[in-house]
Amino acid sequence: MSDTDFATIAEFPTTERSRVRRRHDRGSHAHADVHAVLDATPLCHVGYTIDGAPYVTPTLHWREGNRVYWHGSAASRFLRQAEGTPVCLTCSIMDGYVLARSAFNHSINYRSAMVFGTARVIEDVDEKARALRHFVDGLFPGRWESLRPMTAQELKATSVLWMEIEEATAKVRDAPPGDLEDAHIPVWAGILPLQSGLAAAEPAPGLPGSIALPAALDELIRSGRLR
Amino acid sequence: MSDTDFATIAEFPTTERSRVRRRHDRGSHAHADVHAVLDATPLCHVGYTIDGAPYVTPTLHWREGNRVYWHGSAASRFLRQAEGTPVCLTCSIMDGYVLARSAFNHSINYRSAMVFGTARVIEDVDEKARALRHFVDGLFPGRWESLRPMTAQELKATSVLWMEIEEATAKVRDAPPGDLEDAHIPVWAGILPLQSGLAAAEPAPGLPGSIALPAALDELIRSGRLR
Repeated sequence: MSDTDFATIAEFPTTERSRVRRRHDRGSHAHADVHAVLDATPLCHVGYTIDGAPYVTPTLHWREGNRVYWHGSAASRFLRQAEGTPVCLTCSIMDGYVLARSAFNHSINYRSAMVFGTARVIEDVDEKARALRHFVDGLFPGRWESLRPMTAQELKATSVLWMEIEEATAKVRDAPPGDLEDAHIPVWAGILPLQSGLAAAEPAPGLPGSIALPAALDELIRSGRLR
Repeated sequence: MSDTDFATIAEFPTTERSRVRRRHDRGSHAHADVHAVLDATPLCHVGYTIDGAPYVTPTLHWREGNRVYWHGSAASRFLRQAEGTPVCLTCSIMDGYVLARSAFNHSINYRSAMVFGTARVIEDVDEKARALRHFVDGLFPGRWESLRPMTAQELKATSVLWMEIEEATAKVRDAPPGDLEDAHIPVWAGILPLQSGLAAAEPAPGLPGSIALPAALDELIRSGRLR
């Protein structure tokens, strides 16, 4: 890659907080690399601090440009004081075990993104509805329009948070074991790939047989993607 | 369950930090419930605080009794000051999307455990080797014995942390959509189950054809378990 090419790639700033300290070859601050991991899985882990102590809450997230949104229901402990506080949101996908000839060189293939920002709580009801629609349709194309509309009370009871990504690091390992110096040792080495996907849909109890699975969901299941 | 039965179940203490604030029906402090989630996936997210700011690092963990261990390589930023600092380690497994007739009642089926403790760094080389053996053999039964032994330098370069679980919460959702009041609305509802598993092993480039996949790994791949 020439210097000219490099200069055209949008990158998050490299700071003390987000600098990749190990395995520099695996890390990137490029927007595209960070976004690719955020978009590859709906599950994230949101880290925040209360009274100096760390908390890590799993929830679902989605992305719009350089903003990441997340569903606040699982983070209500945090919600009361979320506005304006620093957050680290991390997504990780394990793609496989990497087995080497020594314990030391065992590893995993993975994709992860660690993004830093300042939490914002959406108070405006219209903006909240817009964000939730993006969330639902991002997972299940066209679904929002087919649903019973959200009531004012439901909108009030649902929390949506977001942050502008201020700093971020993506890390990827996607390679066989890196222990060529041990290749003469007669022990099995290689990758045990990990695969995730959606299985056959299970209709809700009592769902009328006349209501077929929407084509978009059928396509999602067949695609092998998680969203 | 009678009161007598309940009294015999080992539980983590219910404190302000670990109290389940929402969906009480889904939460548990029972040791067995917390351990089951920790044991079901090798991937965890470790949360810690540096200079008041939160960090969430993905890594692999394992459990011995009421202690949880984790691999320190991905947390070197934290390592220098890890000893004695508070940690929140969270494991989450997404088991499926739950699609309801309203956006509000959409959910996911999942298993998660949030455990709190105080980080300890293993300095003793023999104890570190013992812990790493437990880690490797826990993932791949019998593998440690087959490997090229770790060198003193490799042991020094590998970090293992652990903590006694002081407080913990497990949460599980495993149910169809809970929107019976909307059952008359003609939209598809149900579960899209998410499945994870190991795919066919990929031998390292150049691995002699005479070195077969060990039976324990073949069994792991066929079992549908991740470890």
